[in-house]
Amino acid sequence: MRKARVLVWLKQDVLDPQGRTINEALHGLGYELVDDVRQGKAFDIMLDDEGLDEKELLALIEQMSKRLLSNPVIEDFDIELFGRG
Amino acid sequence: MRKARVLVWLKQDVLDPQGRTINEALHGLGYELVDDVRQGKAFDIMLDDEGLDEKELLALIEQMSKRLLSNPVIEDFDIELFGRG
Repeated sequence: MRKARVLVWLKQDVLDPQGRTINEALHGLGYELVDDVRQGKAFDIMLDDEGLDEKELLALIEQMSKRLLSNPVIEDFDIELFGRG
Repeated sequence: MRKARVLVWLKQDVLDPQGRTINEALHGLGYELVDDVRQGKAFDIMLDDEGLDEKELLALIEQMSKRLLSNPVIEDFDIELFGRG
């Protein structure tokens, strides 16, 4: 069993109204040091990786990220694969 | 300017219906290797850290996470602080 983490973010040139709202709310609470906030989605995925090497596993997670976890038109994603645990 | 990343997850003993739905959807797409999915929120926060050391900065981010970014009753959070860039 291995764990993969996928983080999905709006592309840099796409307006992020949630992040903007949080930025303003943090300023309202007195956290003036905050300059910008982007909000994204996080997925921790437990995988039964039996018989798959790291390359095959990453290819599958990339497929899942494109097909289901993200909207490739407006979002980017990062994949992190953790060691066997 | 420094970047902090806060990941907010439902506590392990709290049911995660979104994660469950994604898990089932991935199975429906043929990804039988997926055993479990948890969905969380990700925040990338750009900070004007002038005059603050790492400890003070982390304390402020922890405060923000408790007060605004998470619901401490049902959620946990992790903070990652990136180097000056």
